[in-house]
Amino acid sequence: MPTKETIRDWFSHLQNDICKQLEDTDGQGKFIRDEWERPGGGGGVSSVLTNGSIIEKGGVNFSAVWGKAPEPVLKSLNLNADDQIDFFATGISIVIHPFNPMVPIIHMNTRYFEILPAGRQGDNGMWWFGGGIDLTPHYVNEDDAHYFHQQLKSVCDKHNPSYYPDFKKWADDYFFIKHRNETRGIGGIFFDYLKAENSFTKESRFEFVKDVGASFAPLYSHFMKKNSSLPFSENEKQWQSLRRGRYVEFNLVWDRGTKFGLDTDGRTESILMSLPPQANWEYNQKPKPESKEKKTLSLLKKNINWI
Amino acid sequence: MPTKETIRDWFSHLQNDICKQLEDTDGQGKFIRDEWERPGGGGGVSSVLTNGSIIEKGGVNFSAVWGKAPEPVLKSLNLNADDQIDFFATGISIVIHPFNPMVPIIHMNTRYFEILPAGRQGDNGMWWFGGGIDLTPHYVNEDDAHYFHQQLKSVCDKHNPSYYPDFKKWADDYFFIKHRNETRGIGGIFFDYLKAENSFTKESRFEFVKDVGASFAPLYSHFMKKNSSLPFSENEKQWQSLRRGRYVEFNLVWDRGTKFGLDTDGRTESILMSLPPQANWEYNQKPKPESKEKKTLSLLKKNINWI
Repeated sequence: MPTKETIRDWFSHLQNDICKQLEDTDGQGKFIRDEWERPGGGGGVSSVLTNGSIIEKGGVNFSAVWGKAPEPVLKSLNLNADDQIDFFATGISIVIHPFNPMVPIIHMNTRYFEILPAGRQGDNGMWWFGGGIDLTPHYVNEDDAHYFHQQLKSVCDKHNPSYYPDFKKWADDYFFIKHRNETRGIGGIFFDYLKAENSFTKESRFEFVKDVGASFAPLYSHFMKKNSSLPFSENEKQWQSLRRGRYVEFNLVWDRGTKFGLDTDGRTESILMSLPPQANWEYNQKPKPESKEKKTLSLLKKNINWI
Repeated sequence: MPTKETIRDWFSHLQNDICKQLEDTDGQGKFIRDEWERPGGGGGVSSVLTNGSIIEKGGVNFSAVWGKAPEPVLKSLNLNADDQIDFFATGISIVIHPFNPMVPIIHMNTRYFEILPAGRQGDNGMWWFGGGIDLTPHYVNEDDAHYFHQQLKSVCDKHNPSYYPDFKKWADDYFFIKHRNETRGIGGIFFDYLKAENSFTKESRFEFVKDVGASFAPLYSHFMKKNSSLPFSENEKQWQSLRRGRYVEFNLVWDRGTKFGLDTDGRTESILMSLPPQANWEYNQKPKPESKEKKTLSLLKKNINWI
């Protein structure tokens, strides 16, 4: 059975591996590692690349933190705030903002969480995995969307036939900007509370999460290579800035991970690494009829079958 | 006793008056009026000025809305969600983002709220006023901060000696970016739930709110005239963009009015009119020691006596 140390080390290794692959594809940018400690226990490494040849701002964050479970954690699990509960959480979280508006924004997160009564060790507490990958094109290209979902489906199908349909729906529901009635992008997969149940073991859940993590760099490298030389206009760049504004709105208003981090005194700079280098807002901006922008908006909906 | 119609009309008049005064001072920009209706009852007028000579993006929003009180409203008042409660709310809300980083961002809100059992009319329900003005300089200038607070104190002192100290403290606590441990700017005044109690009547509360509202345009015009011709560098412009990022963070993460509006299906474009035309984020940006930026950060604290 994989221990929390094994899982932590795998995530840490994955962070380095992803940084290396993204640097190779970018060809110019280098990730700068910033190590930090958490006063209550643990810490992390935030790796940030700015002004590459393709990536304008990209963050790959690893953390492994532990200690007494903060009140919001206990509440979210319906546990008594007075309980002496220890938690352990480790994961990596990535957001990449490219220069070229034809290259999509991408996000990935994989995480492992464990809680156990204070002082106890081992696997007698609760544990679960969570995570997901989702894509936010500034312009939705249907072939790219199909490719993205097909790749995720292949990763999921290796593990369980229910994974892709279930986690695709979960992503549609999660990455939704309610006050705009728009999805953040074309979705992907999102999962949480993956524990040992039915035929699923800790090993099999971990193998799935590993495969999701390992799929990230090749998947995004594909879009970097394919789209980063496409020409674009000033108007398209302006549209990118507005879409980045929507990304900010989702992350600050609706993203549970961000809110949880800010509520529990997480490391602000690592949490908000996901924000774009720059974003614009225009009052009541509406794309022209028949425009590419209009078409993109029409595809930012739940329940589109991209396969 | 001022009726809700009297109060609504006064706010509507104030909106037009403020737009005219700001246009006069700007000398170039014109507000564009956008009227909207609320499906559940009422509506508003959003007036937006973009690309003036001094104002880059400014919004002055008036609304008067009514109907069945939404669940979050009832919850916030400790009322049963099943109660048949009607509400009426009217107010104006303003945020101005200037081009020149030496001119501060300003925000004002004045509002009147009434709830009463469904079907009943008149003043037998509950009513209260709320509002405030606060200033967010990109660079804190101590003389400007003194002037701003002195003007607000004069307005408050005309009505009650407790107003300025109480509402100044409330603003410090409200306009606070908890995850940055910074105030949004140099504060100002913030007040809510001003009802009839002790020697305060509905008339006297309304007179105070009117004076706050009327003070806005002269106050901001002062800063527009005084600071809009000051020279600035590219670095100072970049700092402005980062400070605008903080403004976005406050509004989307902490501002109760924004969250309330987005939660209750308010008109998104009017609510998010407060966001800057453009904002930047840099990972872990730290101003140089002894810099003007560093000094500004040192003054974004609660409990500074600016008088």
